[in-house]
Amino acid sequence: MGVTIAIDCMGGDHGPAVTVPAALAFLRSHPDAKAILVGREESVQPLLGSALAQFGARIRLQSASEVVTMDDPPAIAMRNKKDSSMRVAINLVKEGEADAAVSAGNTGALMAISRFVLKTLPGIDRPAIASVLPSQRGHTYVLDLGANVDCSAEHLLQFGVMGAMLVAAVDHKERPSVGLLNIGEEVIKGNDVVKEAGELLRGSGLNFYGNVEGNDIFEGTVDVVVCDGFVGNVALKTSEGLAQMIGAFLKEEFKRSLLTKLLAVLTLPVLNRFKKRVDHRLYNGAPLLGLRGVVLKSHGSADKLAFENALARAAEAASNRLIERITERMATMNEVKA
Amino acid sequence: MGVTIAIDCMGGDHGPAVTVPAALAFLRSHPDAKAILVGREESVQPLLGSALAQFGARIRLQSASEVVTMDDPPAIAMRNKKDSSMRVAINLVKEGEADAAVSAGNTGALMAISRFVLKTLPGIDRPAIASVLPSQRGHTYVLDLGANVDCSAEHLLQFGVMGAMLVAAVDHKERPSVGLLNIGEEVIKGNDVVKEAGELLRGSGLNFYGNVEGNDIFEGTVDVVVCDGFVGNVALKTSEGLAQMIGAFLKEEFKRSLLTKLLAVLTLPVLNRFKKRVDHRLYNGAPLLGLRGVVLKSHGSADKLAFENALARAAEAASNRLIERITERMATMNEVKA
Repeated sequence: MGVTIAIDCMGGDHGPAVTVPAALAFLRSHPDAKAILVGREESVQPLLGSALAQFGARIRLQSASEVVTMDDPPAIAMRNKKDSSMRVAINLVKEGEADAAVSAGNTGALMAISRFVLKTLPGIDRPAIASVLPSQRGHTYVLDLGANVDCSAEHLLQFGVMGAMLVAAVDHKERPSVGLLNIGEEVIKGNDVVKEAGELLRGSGLNFYGNVEGNDIFEGTVDVVVCDGFVGNVALKTSEGLAQMIGAFLKEEFKRSLLTKLLAVLTLPVLNRFKKRVDHRLYNGAPLLGLRGVVLKSHGSADKLAFENALARAAEAASNRLIERITERMATMNEVKA
Repeated sequence: MGVTIAIDCMGGDHGPAVTVPAALAFLRSHPDAKAILVGREESVQPLLGSALAQFGARIRLQSASEVVTMDDPPAIAMRNKKDSSMRVAINLVKEGEADAAVSAGNTGALMAISRFVLKTLPGIDRPAIASVLPSQRGHTYVLDLGANVDCSAEHLLQFGVMGAMLVAAVDHKERPSVGLLNIGEEVIKGNDVVKEAGELLRGSGLNFYGNVEGNDIFEGTVDVVVCDGFVGNVALKTSEGLAQMIGAFLKEEFKRSLLTKLLAVLTLPVLNRFKKRVDHRLYNGAPLLGLRGVVLKSHGSADKLAFENALARAAEAASNRLIERITERMATMNEVKA
């Protein structure tokens, strides 16, 4: 896939120390791909080694003098840092020089700048952030993950379309199933917005499964789970907290005595294989959907493997017509409505 | 603690087969407690064995001819089943014959009947369901868990008061910390209701920690996490799904070969100790807060140990002035306001 990825090398907790080696690993594993490394030359250059010679025309360095920090308010990052590595990477997508941009920087700033520079697609009111999570049957995409706090039913419908087209592009499933996150047997089933969104999704022509509950995310009941950004963010963070607690408890129990420590060594291959199945690094790279260009957000704390996975996901999305798929689908729906 | 618990013996997936043995185990482990077993005599009686003789005045059977099913709409359960075991158990609390009622039945019906029979406490608009979850530092109470889908800031404040008083009663912490569930670094921090609730909690006189995120639930950052019922329900169900997936993956990895199976046998004590720490049965029994009486909801699928834990939690809440604490606290707050 001959795609070009613009990489914000300065973003994330570790900056170029992670992003540059990840970019080189990505180029090695994707022989057709190209990378534009965006950032301060003096920070990026020393980490390249012989890469410029090795990859030739497949790699180039694009200088950007500023850096968006994790604490920069989105509006400040947008207005005052016009030569930030984040902004320059997104500009490259806008100008058609890159097919996708990837950044591990400040989520709010990335969303604000992407929206300002690239604009949203026709029919999309608000972009959303989608994340992929492991499930008992493979993996599940969940959106929105925090870009939109108060959502209308129409917004949730749009998330459904964007999520379905993402899975179509990235997982090559033509009719991915879409579920609407709701609550179950309890007193009142869902609020009015969710009820109305259910109606809209039912009439959307998507492969709409119906309501799902929180547990369905990890059961893998559907390919895409749609929810507002507040709920999605809480679900994601709660899962992270639980996974961390379980990991800590397992470690504590295996460290309890000399005998249990010995058992830990013996069972290491089993535990490692288990860990690999739930390794969040394999799921890194959250697409910002609904924009006129492919942008992916990497976790700020991503290590080399995690960041490389985000780059691979970006390449997959860009080379499989993600933007075109969303545009076409939205057009069909608006025709039906009109 | 000489409390009397009214037990809806017919509720839950397993009915008397679980509730009756659990009631007897509870009486054995709580030598001062009494139990009123509510249900169809022909279903409960055969399971009692020599219990009536053994426990004497500490146990009695209260006949109820009807059963609320899991599918009964709350309104139907309330209007058409006035002699249900659920209703009769709650009536016993209303009449002062029991200090608390526990049911593993239909959540919606339990909430509707409790609210109708017992009424809410002064200053409380809506009752809430609180659940306790394990955390890295012990455990965390989360409310609401699904009784209230659209909440105002005032409601969230009331949940904060009820949750704090619950922890004061059950865990004997006089100034439990209260956190407001919100989302983090993302574009917009929380919606307007949550922002306003933060202001109210800050001025409430409670030990308000401030905003927390999903991961803080299992990290145990605060004693009580406050959120609306939709978000709380999603967080809880998502956690259940993840825990189940992790359990399934661990099992699969240990079953992969003869060698890993042998390792599983060797590490069984470690794995069991780990499992015990996250055993959801130990956390069974969700108080319905804000009512003029103590009512606890057990998980429908509870087994004997789980249901016994719900009974123990009910006894703890009732014998530590839960209702009085909430009433007093609400009165103080309303004085300040007035």
